[in-house]
Formats: sequence, C-alpha cells, structure tokens
Amino acid sequence: MAKKKTKAETAESMARNQREISVSEFFLKNRHLLGFDSPRKALLTAVKEAVDNSLDACEEAGILPEISVEIEQLAESRFMVRIVDNGPGILRAQIPKIFAKLLYGSKFHRLRMSRGQQGIGISAAGMYGQLTTGNATTILSKTKGHKLAHRMRVQIDTRTNKPTILEDEQEEWQPVFFPVNADGKEGHAVKYAHGTCVSIEMEASYIRGRLSVDEYVKQCAIVNPHLQIYYRVTLLKDKGGEEETHAVPWTTFFRVVKEVPDPANEIKPHPHGVELGLLMQMLKDTSARTLKSALSHDFSRVSDRAAQEICERAGLNPKARPTRIAHEESEALFKAVNSTKLMRPPTDCLSPIGEEQIIAGLKKEIEADFYTAVTRPPTVYRGNPFQIEVGVAYAKPGENPELIADEPVRVMRFANRVPLLYMAGACAMTKAVSGVNWKAYGMSQPKGSLPIGPLVVMVHMASVWVPFTSESKEAVAHYPEIVKELTFGLQECGRRLSVYLSKRKRLAEAERKRSYIEQYIPHLALGLKEVLDLSDRQEKVVVKKLEGMLEKTHLEL
Amino acid sequence: MAKKKTKAETAESMARNQREISVSEFFLKNRHLLGFDSPRKALLTAVKEAVDNSLDACEEAGILPEISVEIEQLAESRFMVRIVDNGPGILRAQIPKIFAKLLYGSKFHRLRMSRGQQGIGISAAGMYGQLTTGNATTILSKTKGHKLAHRMRVQIDTRTNKPTILEDEQEEWQPVFFPVNADGKEGHAVKYAHGTCVSIEMEASYIRGRLSVDEYVKQCAIVNPHLQIYYRVTLLKDKGGEEETHAVPWTTFFRVVKEVPDPANEIKPHPHGVELGLLMQMLKDTSARTLKSALSHDFSRVSDRAAQEICERAGLNPKARPTRIAHEESEALFKAVNSTKLMRPPTDCLSPIGEEQIIAGLKKEIEADFYTAVTRPPTVYRGNPFQIEVGVAYAKPGENPELIADEPVRVMRFANRVPLLYMAGACAMTKAVSGVNWKAYGMSQPKGSLPIGPLVVMVHMASVWVPFTSESKEAVAHYPEIVKELTFGLQECGRRLSVYLSKRKRLAEAERKRSYIEQYIPHLALGLKEVLDLSDRQEKVVVKKLEGMLEKTHLEL
Repeated sequence: MAKKKTKAETAESMARNQREISVSEFFLKNRHLLGFDSPRKALLTAVKEAVDNSLDACEEAGILPEISVEIEQLAESRFMVRIVDNGPGILRAQIPKIFAKLLYGSKFHRLRMSRGQQGIGISAAGMYGQLTTGNATTILSKTKGHKLAHRMRVQIDTRTNKPTILEDEQEEWQPVFFPVNADGKEGHAVKYAHGTCVSIEMEASYIRGRLSVDEYVKQCAIVNPHLQIYYRVTLLKDKGGEEETHAVPWTTFFRVVKEVPDPANEIKPHPHGVELGLLMQMLKDTSARTLKSALSHDFSRVSDRAAQEICERAGLNPKARPTRIAHEESEALFKAVNSTKLMRPPTDCLSPIGEEQIIAGLKKEIEADFYTAVTRPPTVYRGNPFQIEVGVAYAKPGENPELIADEPVRVMRFANRVPLLYMAGACAMTKAVSGVNWKAYGMSQPKGSLPIGPLVVMVHMASVWVPFTSESKEAVAHYPEIVKELTFGLQECGRRLSVYLSKRKRLAEAERKRSYIEQYIPHLALGLKEVLDLSDRQEKVVVKKLEGMLEKTHLEL
Repeated sequence: MAKKKTKAETAESMARNQREISVSEFFLKNRHLLGFDSPRKALLTAVKEAVDNSLDACEEAGILPEISVEIEQLAESRFMVRIVDNGPGILRAQIPKIFAKLLYGSKFHRLRMSRGQQGIGISAAGMYGQLTTGNATTILSKTKGHKLAHRMRVQIDTRTNKPTILEDEQEEWQPVFFPVNADGKEGHAVKYAHGTCVSIEMEASYIRGRLSVDEYVKQCAIVNPHLQIYYRVTLLKDKGGEEETHAVPWTTFFRVVKEVPDPANEIKPHPHGVELGLLMQMLKDTSARTLKSALSHDFSRVSDRAAQEICERAGLNPKARPTRIAHEESEALFKAVNSTKLMRPPTDCLSPIGEEQIIAGLKKEIEADFYTAVTRPPTVYRGNPFQIEVGVAYAKPGENPELIADEPVRVMRFANRVPLLYMAGACAMTKAVSGVNWKAYGMSQPKGSLPIGPLVVMVHMASVWVPFTSESKEAVAHYPEIVKELTFGLQECGRRLSVYLSKRKRLAEAERKRSYIEQYIPHLALGLKEVLDLSDRQEKVVVKKLEGMLEKTHLEL
C-alpha cells in the first residue's frame, strides 16, 4: 500500500481541530494514572476508594465504622465488588455526582486531614467498570430520618464528565450482610439505621499476596483499630454447580478501640505556604473590607498585631481595599508576609493514630515479640501541617512464618490511615527506611537498602494534603521536610529496638551458657562422687547445690 | 489553646460541602504531577512544553522548524522564558484557550504520533508563572496572509479553567532574534513570514548539568536533525551594572537534515485494542446505519469481509442498527471481534527518526569512535502502534571527557522525539537497558544495573500514544510489549558494538605486541652484531629486515 501523504496544515485548518478535552476522557485514556492499569491493581484500587469514602463519612459523622467488603467472581476475568457501610448515607441529589463525575467532592477545597482528597477515586472505579463491562455503578443509600433507601444506577458520560442516571428508585433498606460475632460464630443479620452500599462490576483478577485486597484489608484494620471490617471473597471454584452459591464464610477483623478518633479540624491556609499568585487571588476573593482584616481573617496564625506588622513592613495602609492591593502592591505584601515571624500552622487539623493504638493495631494482626511506636510532633511542609508516626514489631526468628529472618524487613506504608501497597520503590517512606543506619541498632543492612530481619516497620503520614506522586495515591513525594521527620521517627524506634535486641542477645548468650553447664552438672557430680567417694545422697545434694548456684548466676546476668 | 471539637456531620451537612473541582484547581494544587515541583524542573518543563508545541506545529504545516529558546534571569529566583518559532502561527480566537485552559488541544482525540498529546502543558506553564509571579503569559503570533501580528496577554481563571484576556492588540510582526550564520559569525535579523512567540515569567532556578535546559536543547537537536535551534541564557551576573544587557551570544544548533520528516497519518482505532465499554460508545456515536458498515468504517483493518465474519460469529444481523447492538448485544459482538483474525494496525501513523538520521544526530553532538543505530519494525501495545529505535555511540576511553570509562553508560531517552530527562529510574527504557546482558557484548555490567563504559545509549519510542507514568511526561510505563521491543533493539546494537569492541581489542593487542617487539629490535640487532661480528652496515640491514618481518606479521594479525 502506498503511503498516503497527509496534507500540510495551516493555522486555519489546525484551529478547526482544536477542542476541549473533558477530564473524564483524559483519565479514561490515562487510566493507569488512577491505578487502573492492570486487572489486579484495578480490583484493589476500587476496594480502596470505596473503603476510604466509607471511613471518611463515618468518622465525619461521629459513627464507629462497620464496613463489609465483598468480592465475587462472576466469570474468569469478571468480578463484582460490593462495599457496605453504616455511615450517614448520601442524599439522593448527591449520589450521581459523587459516583459518576470526576473531580467532585467535599474534601478538595478544605484544609483538613481525610483519606479522600481529590474527588476522583470512586467515580474512576465506576468508570473503569463501565469501560470494561459496559455496566453501571449501583448505589443503595439510606440517610437518617428517611424510611426508605434510594437505589440508583449511574454511569459517567465520559464525553462531558456528567452523570447519566439509569435507575432511580426507592426501596426498603435491607440488612445487607451477616457478620460474625466476637466468639467466631455466625451472627444475626444486622440492619443499620443508615448507610451506603456500592456495587461495581469490573474486569479484574484476584491474586493473594503482598499487593492483594487481602493485604489491604488487613493493613486497614491495623491502622484503623476503631474499624470493624467484614471481608469475603467468593471465587468461581467456591461456587456449587447449581445456581446457589456455597456460602464462603466472612472473615471479621474486630475493632480493638471503641471510640471514633477525634475529628480533625479544618484550618485556614498559613501565609508562609501561600504563593504570590494565590495571595493575589485570595485578596481578590476576600469578603473582608480592609487589608488588615483580610490578613487576620483569611489566614491562620495572623493575629491583629501580626497583620498590622505585615502592613507596616510592606508600607501599605492597613485600611486599604484588599482588591486594590491584589492588583498593585501584592509583591510588596508578599515579601512582608514572608519576612514576618508567625506561629507555625495549627495542628488540630491532624488526627494521628497515637502510639498506644499503633501498638494495639500491630499486636492484633502481627505476631511478634517486641512492639514499639513513636508519634512525632506535628510540623509543616510547604505550609501544610503534617505528622509522622512509626511503629515496629520484631518477631523472634522463626516465630512468625511471615517474617523471615534473612529477608528484607516488611515496610507497611500508610497515608492518612490508608494502606499504600503499590509503588513502594517510588515512595519517600521506603527511601527513609533504607536511609536509616540500622546496623547501629543491631540489624544487618546491605548498603543503601532495607535492613534484613524478622521486622515489620509501619510508617504513617497524617496531613491535610499528602503529596502523592500520582493520582492513584500510591507513593509519597520526596519533600525533604517529610523525609527528615520520617528519619527521626524511624531512628527513635530503632534505638528502642536496639535496647530490646541487645537484651535479647545477652539473654540468649546466658541461656546458651546455662544449658551448656546444665548438661555437664550430672557428669561433674559423678566425677566428684568418684573422687571424693560420695554416697548417692551426697551426689544428689551436690547436683542440687550446683543447679542452685547456676540459677543464681543466671539471674544476675 | 483548647482543641475545638468539630461538630459531627450529617448526610445533609456533608451534601452542602460537595462541589465541583475544576481541573485547573486540581492541577494547581498538584502541580508536581505536571513537572512543576521544583524551581529547576519548572524551568525545563516550561521550555519543553513550548518547544514541543512549536515543533509539532511546524511539522504539521510542512515547515522546516527554526526555534529560539531564550532564558533571562530577572531576579535571584525569577526568570523570563521566551520561545519563538517560524511555525504557521495561531488564529486569534484560539490563542486564549491554547495558552490559558488546561485540557484543550487538537492532539488528544486523534490517533497520530505527535509530541504533545494532552492539551495541558503550555497552559500549565503559564499557570505556574501566574501562581509564582502573578504575571500573565504573553503571546505574539502572526499567521500567513495576515499583515499584522496579534499580541495577547492571558491568564487562567483557575476557579473555572477558563482564559482571562488581559490584553488583545494588533501590532507589526518584528524580527524577534538574531541568529548566527553557519560560519559562526553573527547573522542578520531574520523576519519570518509567520510564527509564534510566547513569553512566561516564572519563579525558577537555572542549573547546568544532566537535568538542565542546556541538556534538553542539545538532546532535542540530536533527535530532531531537521531542527535549527538558537539558545541563549542571560544570568544576572552577565548583565552590566547599567540597564542595558551585555549581549550574551546565541548558541546555534544547526540542522543537518534539510527536509521536514514525513508527516504521520491519522488512524482509526484497531478493534483489538478497544474495550467493551468503548465499543458500545462507538456504536452509539457512529454515523453508519448498519452494524457492518460501522465496523468497517469506524475501525482500522476491518474489511467488508472481516466485518461480515464478525457479524456471523456474533450471530448478529449485519444490517442491524448499531445503536440497538450497543445496548443489547454488545458482549457477543465484543467476543466476536476479539476472536476474529485481523491485520495489525497500520503504521504510517508513526514517523520514526530513521537509522541514518539517528547516527547523523549522534555524530553531530557526541564525539565518539563508533556509531550504530537500529529502527525496529513497528508493532502494537493495547491496540496502539509503536516503534522502537536505538542508537549507540562508543568513544575510545579518554577520548571524550564527557564519557567516562568507569562510570555507568549514559542513557538518553526520547518519546516521540522529545528528550526525557527526569525520572529515569521509573522509566521502562532505563529498565530495558539494565535488563540486557551487556557482558555478552564485551562491556562490564554490575548485576541488574546499567553497563559501565564510555558509551551513549539513545532510545526512542514513537507511538500514537506514549503511556507516560505521569502527566509531566517524564517516564514510559512498563508495558511488556514495549520492554520487549526495547530489548530487541538494544541487543541488536549490542551485537554490532561487540563486533567493533572485539576488533578494537584485537588491534590493541597487536599494537601492544608490536610496540613491545619494536622496543627490542635495536637491542636484538646489537646482540646479533656482537655474536656474529657484523659491521654497522650489516647491523642496519638486520634491523630493517626485522622491522619488515614485524610489519608483515602485524598486517596478518
């Protein structure tokens, strides 16, 4: 076939081809950016986005979260994912936009710690289901005070990034799953007063292991000790030949903490993290009538006195109209803001897990001999408050089959209480763990790599804005302030670990000596008996005395 | 300060906070996703986006591209970036949207190789400038047939992702830079018949080295041998104390090829790369009136016969209305499409550089002793045609000060003729280079790492859709089909390199022997002279004969 020559374009012909690209078209074509690049990862991402939303909603409403995650294989590469929560429910008018419109939500525009932040995730999961199976996302939601639940089926019109509603009914709110009692026996059906159930059918594949939904659910339970989570995977092979499904039992991860974490507060931006262009925008948009009041009302940590000082430094009238300043004197103001000393941003916008609860979470899911945890004081990167927490669990070699003594330690990464499984290599957290000198704490460590040993290192970053390296939120970007805090937290845990390890080493040494001597006491006694010509009784007394001596020495070690 | 308790939310209060997030707000907050995470990278990203656009426009219009890149330091951390091209220019109505609206362009919706593909880059650069300096992007553009140029200053209203026009004037089109003639002397001012000049003021930092704009411009010249590029960086220290700027000379990268590359053709999607949901959408949208004609018109490689076969396999009437099929029988159709054998996608949508031109480009910018290049035949990943090209340049150790014999080889990565500088570690290209067994080709190589030696490895991927790992387009995602092709290309170059290296080794060996023997000929002759009692004349004859023998042996080696 002869190659057709494309006609040379002109400015006019090119203009005719220019058009707007909707954000849904963009992400449909770039779905690997959202975590939907492989069938295996797609399954995890969908579960994660739904659970994140459920947890956020429960906590904001002050409800102790109870969530079920159900995965059912429908055909070789097709799965149904269903997540049910006891959250506050969603108003009918919001359902289509929340589940079938990218970039829609309540968390993006505020400065407050939450799992979701972008308003993309759950709609992206639905869009992926739609792309691979043609089917819609089904939502069932009941809010407090309403008798009936809403059932809706929605899809994204990817051309316009707008929801299409395929079904919109009211129906009885059903008890949706059958949890297990604390004694392990099957419990009664629970009917929550309110909640949401979302079901997405998608092309996927289910594989166990470190990057699986199983692992995600387990880690989720560790880092959210107030969460009760029910989990069930039904594969084709589990199903009977008949239509009815053999009931695969639910796995329950029980809560160990009975209180909802303190809700995080929303904060205003700190002036030192605000760029010039943003400062101008804020002055244009403010409802304050003077520059001084705009400074003290729209920002955090700007007292009246500080606002006055900033105006003076900038040579500006505190009573000037903010809009005028935005246009004419913003640079002077920007410099004055940045040269004025202000208190660091408030940190009640963060809700760390806490040392005690980290240890409780680790103990619940990881069998080990030594546990410790550190919650670092809050600090700031680019104006955003954040806080690092580190926990470690050390198993005696051979004690926990999942922690192998001559393999690299297991790093569990979390951001705002969400487990991060993929892209470990690209994450600041992994880098920080490899960067610490673990040899100083009694661990072996190849140069520049993760240390070796039966150790779990759990790292958590809580922030009003976690800087992820991609929309799929799998790895934390390498901000130096963050790496520094991570390092401090890891070192503190390392020091405590080293105390434990050297004690253990000393004990093991003593134990070794003791057992060595113990072996020889009878022979020694026998020898003494012959040399000193002792009676059997006397020999027994000697053995007892020697053992007593040994016991005493051992205690002193 | 006592911690204020945040009030528990309800479904109603949460609904009040839900809102749409504009794509510009999203990327403003996540600007590291677009390559604007550090002042240094921001400078490079801005230059790159502008040059990409200029090159695409020139090539589509069949114009031999001439582009100037000017960077001027205005203050410690503030720079002006200005890019001028001789392209077709941009119509006035399009300027605001192209330069101040994210997700707008002509390249996203078509399947054809081009540098830009997202419609984000240049607007993102402008948005970053606006955020960090408060200033607008200035565009001057003249199209063919218009007497005057348009001057516009535009900003993004980030709240709505819509352009704001601050200035809109007509003015004389000026000769905009002073290039250098081929003899290295300063040339006359050039006045292009048409073109575009874009200026962005931004916070940035200029640093030389592997990740610099210098390096980008150089690599751009290698991979676009038809491009003539003028480059100048004026730093504060270069400026006089007076207002006038000391003219820093332009660096010119001359073109070595005088023809515009064959323009790539646009293709239709190949059915084997289309997901079920997309197939349904296409059937809904088609202008064809029957299923059969929809299949043969809207897809590439579906002949009438193939369309008929697909319909039969699916048990569908070829004359059925496509919209009906979309709703009711799309799954059967989808299966039939994927089980029908079809020709691979056409590949005239690609415009590879070509082996000869790769070598020309390498020779132009890299001093070395051995050059070779391979252009692999086109192939397909996920329905997208792509083609891999590899070039290598080997310098004799010590010959090129930039190529150090005991350091890892230098990998230059390109996607659709665009140099990729950052995120090498995350890129499939780097992985492929490390994955090849270079020891087999006579290079040393630590296990799993890049080989060591004075070698440049240039890798190019040409595709209608390069799967980047993030919007900043810095690394190629690890699709197995892509890694495989990369490996084949690298191995072929490796084999040729190994022939060169073993020949060089043999020659060096012979040389070593020869010089060794040469040293001893006079001593040998002297010995013979004494033993055999030769005259001085006879001694000289012996030396000559020995040298002759050596010469002959050497030639036979």
